[in-house]
Amino acid sequence: MKVVVLVGGVGGARFLVGLKSLLGAPEHEVTAVVNTGDDVWMHGLRITPDLDTCMYTLGGGIDVERGWGRADESWTVKEELAKYGAEPTWFGLGDRDIATHLVRTRMLRAGYPLSAVVEALCHRWQPGVRLLPMSDDRVETHVVVSEGDETRAIHFQEWWVKHRAALPAQSFASVGAESATAAPGVVDAILEADVVLLAPSNPVVSVGTILAVPGIRDALRKTEAGVVGLSPIIGGKPLRGMADACLTAIGVETSAEAVGRLYGSRKTTEGGVLDGWLVHTGDRCDVPGVAVRAVPLLMSDVDATAAMARAALELAGVSVG
Amino acid sequence: MKVVVLVGGVGGARFLVGLKSLLGAPEHEVTAVVNTGDDVWMHGLRITPDLDTCMYTLGGGIDVERGWGRADESWTVKEELAKYGAEPTWFGLGDRDIATHLVRTRMLRAGYPLSAVVEALCHRWQPGVRLLPMSDDRVETHVVVSEGDETRAIHFQEWWVKHRAALPAQSFASVGAESATAAPGVVDAILEADVVLLAPSNPVVSVGTILAVPGIRDALRKTEAGVVGLSPIIGGKPLRGMADACLTAIGVETSAEAVGRLYGSRKTTEGGVLDGWLVHTGDRCDVPGVAVRAVPLLMSDVDATAAMARAALELAGVSVG
Repeated sequence: MKVVVLVGGVGGARFLVGLKSLLGAPEHEVTAVVNTGDDVWMHGLRITPDLDTCMYTLGGGIDVERGWGRADESWTVKEELAKYGAEPTWFGLGDRDIATHLVRTRMLRAGYPLSAVVEALCHRWQPGVRLLPMSDDRVETHVVVSEGDETRAIHFQEWWVKHRAALPAQSFASVGAESATAAPGVVDAILEADVVLLAPSNPVVSVGTILAVPGIRDALRKTEAGVVGLSPIIGGKPLRGMADACLTAIGVETSAEAVGRLYGSRKTTEGGVLDGWLVHTGDRCDVPGVAVRAVPLLMSDVDATAAMARAALELAGVSVG
Repeated sequence: MKVVVLVGGVGGARFLVGLKSLLGAPEHEVTAVVNTGDDVWMHGLRITPDLDTCMYTLGGGIDVERGWGRADESWTVKEELAKYGAEPTWFGLGDRDIATHLVRTRMLRAGYPLSAVVEALCHRWQPGVRLLPMSDDRVETHVVVSEGDETRAIHFQEWWVKHRAALPAQSFASVGAESATAAPGVVDAILEADVVLLAPSNPVVSVGTILAVPGIRDALRKTEAGVVGLSPIIGGKPLRGMADACLTAIGVETSAEAVGRLYGSRKTTEGGVLDGWLVHTGDRCDVPGVAVRAVPLLMSDVDATAAMARAALELAGVSVG
């Protein structure tokens, strides 16, 4: 079975672990199309947070407690950078992590596309899932915020990490998305898939940004695979992260139903991408033209996450032996 | 008093500490013109070993035992880089050190000349000596070596660090030197100096490379200041480093006299730069057209080094109160 999953960072990575556990047999192939809208230049290094979170999580290098960055991490470089006074100090780059960024940056500077860099880094990490950046082009999520009379656009990371999403966001822009193309393999993987899943990732700045890359939404609408999403909103709250702040900014209620309607039906919504929508047990939800099912969606451990993945596949009309 | 010193790495930096101790009063101004021929791109970072050794040594950040790199250093990034398999592992970059290289590389990529980068880094380190790169242009020492039937040119760092100067060098090339210009302030500092000193640094790949930058040798020959060199060869051996391997490669004997003659007399040698040549007590030395004096040159501590500096200044015809 060929499964494609659209994913962001922490939530997406944990979902992939469950899916990989479910589809461990060699006849299955899981491809993750990973959001790169959070990518940022920092200290002259190109950082790809969601790709790294997926790679480290699947490859056994993640700090499990924190959810991002490397286990057994140290912070010497960051402390030294702060002593020079001229570098931002709010972005947490650990020493082990920096090695990854050095390899990536050197390869990008040498002309390799990001997808080739990811492949090279995965030689070490062996994630067991094919990780594809959504695009090799630079697409960055910027956030329009206002403080007092001043309105300005800041990089998503500045809003998310430095301001903890506490500055009210007026809108999001995927800078570069219009002229971007999907990375090699992304559209083909979707078109050739047996199932396509939307991980319970941030629907605005993770999955939403992937869908903003020209060609990806079309591929989702065109594929013969069933397309099923998993709600990242449980009981009216995001399971993690600050998806509520993102949804509020684009005028969408923080509810499983509203996110399902945001994605929309492949059959009846213009630009809609869903055949099925999986919500948490007890969440009431009606999405016109979409089959909705409720199951536990807490990702409390690998087995629980695998059960979610199994339910999503079943809702898409396939079953795992 | 205005003193200009041409320096390389470890030996040059230690000499500067002694000179700074001697000329601590605010009416004195010490400018070091630092070799950048050892500079190298490594892991996508621009590394300037001699500038950093001077900056860390004078600023109190050096690992005193090792002579290069930062005190209390850790090596996490290096270990992690090795695990990716695609990066050279023979170059020792510590975590604290990497922060310096990140700041430098970011500034260079943004278009700042190296001299401006050095000035910015020195805001933190306050070396108490004005550090100038010999040039803002890329000048790199390459070494022509042969193994078996194969002759090839490798970067100086590869020869020096990876091969510990054990591959016989056939010649050295200062790649880029011909079209380079001295960094802003270098020629003026030499022309306006009261004394110019050649530190007891490697005469081939440190001082020799500085002299290869067009304009610097001319300035040394033109300045009204006395020019005095300190021998890095004591009793026929280099005090540190592998200057003997470098001298052998260019057909010069490893002796104080041979190095003095290599530099030559400002008065009687074509292209010569010396008025005075300071050698170690007991070393016999005759350099035509150059005043030779023998004093202890061991740099065993700051006071001994300051005494060497005092002797050099006296040989140049100036005295310190």
